[in-house]
Amino acid sequence: MNGLDDTHDPALRSWVPSANEPGTDFPVQNLPFARFRRRGSDTPWRVGVAIGDQVLDLKLATVQCPWGDGVHDLLEPLAQGDLNAFIALGRPAWRTVRQALSMALAEGSDQGPFLELCLVPQRLVEYAMPCFIHDYTDFYTGIHHAMAVGKLMRPDNPLLPNYKWVPIGYHGRASSISLGGTVKRPSGQVRAATGADPVYGPSRRLDYELELGAIVGPGNAPGEPVPMAAAEDQLFGLVLLNDWSARDLQAWEYQPLGPFLAKNFATHISPWIVTMDALAPYRRPFVRVAGDPAPLPYLDSEFNRAAGALDIRLEVGLKTAAMKSAVRVSHSNALDAYWTLAQLVAHHTCNGCNLQPGDLLGTGTLSGPAPGQGGSLLELTAGGREPLTLPNGETRSFLEDGDTVVLRARCEAPGAAPLGFGTLAGTVVG
Amino acid sequence: MNGLDDTHDPALRSWVPSANEPGTDFPVQNLPFARFRRRGSDTPWRVGVAIGDQVLDLKLATVQCPWGDGVHDLLEPLAQGDLNAFIALGRPAWRTVRQALSMALAEGSDQGPFLELCLVPQRLVEYAMPCFIHDYTDFYTGIHHAMAVGKLMRPDNPLLPNYKWVPIGYHGRASSISLGGTVKRPSGQVRAATGADPVYGPSRRLDYELELGAIVGPGNAPGEPVPMAAAEDQLFGLVLLNDWSARDLQAWEYQPLGPFLAKNFATHISPWIVTMDALAPYRRPFVRVAGDPAPLPYLDSEFNRAAGALDIRLEVGLKTAAMKSAVRVSHSNALDAYWTLAQLVAHHTCNGCNLQPGDLLGTGTLSGPAPGQGGSLLELTAGGREPLTLPNGETRSFLEDGDTVVLRARCEAPGAAPLGFGTLAGTVVG
Repeated sequence: MNGLDDTHDPALRSWVPSANEPGTDFPVQNLPFARFRRRGSDTPWRVGVAIGDQVLDLKLATVQCPWGDGVHDLLEPLAQGDLNAFIALGRPAWRTVRQALSMALAEGSDQGPFLELCLVPQRLVEYAMPCFIHDYTDFYTGIHHAMAVGKLMRPDNPLLPNYKWVPIGYHGRASSISLGGTVKRPSGQVRAATGADPVYGPSRRLDYELELGAIVGPGNAPGEPVPMAAAEDQLFGLVLLNDWSARDLQAWEYQPLGPFLAKNFATHISPWIVTMDALAPYRRPFVRVAGDPAPLPYLDSEFNRAAGALDIRLEVGLKTAAMKSAVRVSHSNALDAYWTLAQLVAHHTCNGCNLQPGDLLGTGTLSGPAPGQGGSLLELTAGGREPLTLPNGETRSFLEDGDTVVLRARCEAPGAAPLGFGTLAGTVVG
Repeated sequence: MNGLDDTHDPALRSWVPSANEPGTDFPVQNLPFARFRRRGSDTPWRVGVAIGDQVLDLKLATVQCPWGDGVHDLLEPLAQGDLNAFIALGRPAWRTVRQALSMALAEGSDQGPFLELCLVPQRLVEYAMPCFIHDYTDFYTGIHHAMAVGKLMRPDNPLLPNYKWVPIGYHGRASSISLGGTVKRPSGQVRAATGADPVYGPSRRLDYELELGAIVGPGNAPGEPVPMAAAEDQLFGLVLLNDWSARDLQAWEYQPLGPFLAKNFATHISPWIVTMDALAPYRRPFVRVAGDPAPLPYLDSEFNRAAGALDIRLEVGLKTAAMKSAVRVSHSNALDAYWTLAQLVAHHTCNGCNLQPGDLLGTGTLSGPAPGQGGSLLELTAGGREPLTLPNGETRSFLEDGDTVVLRARCEAPGAAPLGFGTLAGTVVG
């Protein structure tokens, strides 16, 4: 039911030695996609697949290596560097290519000698956005985040009445999505203390948000909702997502139409798209705690109840300018989401709204229920009132210039090959 | 200061007879751009300019007609059907082409014999989206709309404290923007009466919103705000915009992140982009009523105070299935906006958010202050409590299947040539 096949066999090993190292994010069971080129070159961006500490160049691989019947045609858009065109082909194509790449990269493959010449070390490459994102929607599925933020604003009534019925979401800015590196501290209008006029200046409450982002598959025609039964087929894969947020701008601007300048200065995603097919061993039942309403029928399916949720461990590291390496400041799990990705697709399209290949759906901040599991500083510091003390004695209410935020995600479970998402790091500059 | 030149001379006439008829929207002083092809053909979309009841085919015109020094190169992206590339060139290029087209289409032009062969009657063409829109932002500049809607929800406190300081806006959905024709009634989740569970079903409170949409010019780099002094150069032109809205979905979903499914099923724009350069004679001072705060410095400029606002008359017609033609149900003016378009650009980018050529900025619903000037049925019917009675005796609280909404905009003032935007019509289907 979860789509498990030979490609998920935890005993499978690759002829690329680094793919068999225990800590790698990119064993042969993962096979995520990115767009890359050799750093410093000015060649067109190519689509590649991560294997251990290498990138398999799919342009070279398509040309240099013999492939089975039908596979070569499916590789063609990848060879042309166009991940959107491959995404548009849909799940049968994705699975055929996954099978082919898995066999080709597995120990003992007779394609190995051809593909060895198509590898580039990851340390020598730079990345581009993995696909063109026309529309970006950010949801609010992290119920512990919604509770924590709600408590700061409405202590007696933290969760609004619609939360447990509606997968709340809003449209984000597509133009300012990037792979990160740095984020420039935004300026904006903020409310002055004690009734004075608002002022324009640099945000003093700059924050990160720990999210996952889903890359949409083939999409749907305008006016044609995607039912739950077809929703999983609209999900290509996942990236890490940092939804940078200026809390002071947000507090002043967000009523009545939602966040705007507080978010749209920058959204960062990780370069590697981990496919939903790779994540099949980490599917888990979707559960509702006793007393919570069952989802309305348009948000419900047998498959979703059995396997709609994902067990993905998430963590945030923070490195200040005075530190040599990042320290973990929080951790949570994608299971903390109140809605599944399929429910987000079904809800988003239930009014006829059309999704397109490569569209990005953010989960919203994924915080855990316990202290230390907040996916943002807003939560970890109780709105800035209880600063974090870092191991070197520094304190942080919100981010300071020179701070680097590092997001990671990793899947581990008995009977399945561990895999990861790589890292997403961003440094605040003034 | 307003950029008035020979192209705005109200005495200017065209050798295209229909462009000289008093009621035309498209005299030689207008020269709006669209993408079109002969209806029923499957040729690539071409960029054209409206003149009277004709379209000047800019692919043919570029090839067939001699043009002055430098003009031919600027026409090249238009000849290729790529309005975004032309928009990216910026105002000096736009003005050069406007001058050249104005002279070529003016009475007595020796280019007339060449260009006569490049005309297609508008009644024989169909239109495509005039440009690619990556990001769509909808603002909330209609203060009378904000007041009226606020009153329905918060009778004692209709306008939120940020309204007169912040040009409130939010991101809309780009994928579902189209030229209209029909709009399919959306389904969604709505709150049930008297504490019962919410239900999923067709919207019963479907509404329109009368807006203008600004097409963004060359854009700005990430992290580099556009100051007010440069904001006008980021505005290419305007279209009519109908922000279809499902009020019942909106009421249940919009807190805390703003409207989502209530809006993103469809947004319609008119095919012709009326350039800001054509609108120069209709610039008016930007004024604040006594007692309202002056805009913060980042939203202020001398030019904006002198000429930042636009005098554009707007109206909404409604035709039910039982009617032969539309009746006017409301009228307002773009002067009813609380913020100018330049202020929207400066605000949108003040945090470093990057705009791109072809982006769409909606004004928000432009309602007038008086009864009968509401730009939506929500206002005209006081939230559905006071249905409109139409001339044929029918009543409407919200839109019914078969209803057609027709938006129009027109500029008229002493000493300036009248011009218009064409029409934007959409029919509700079940």
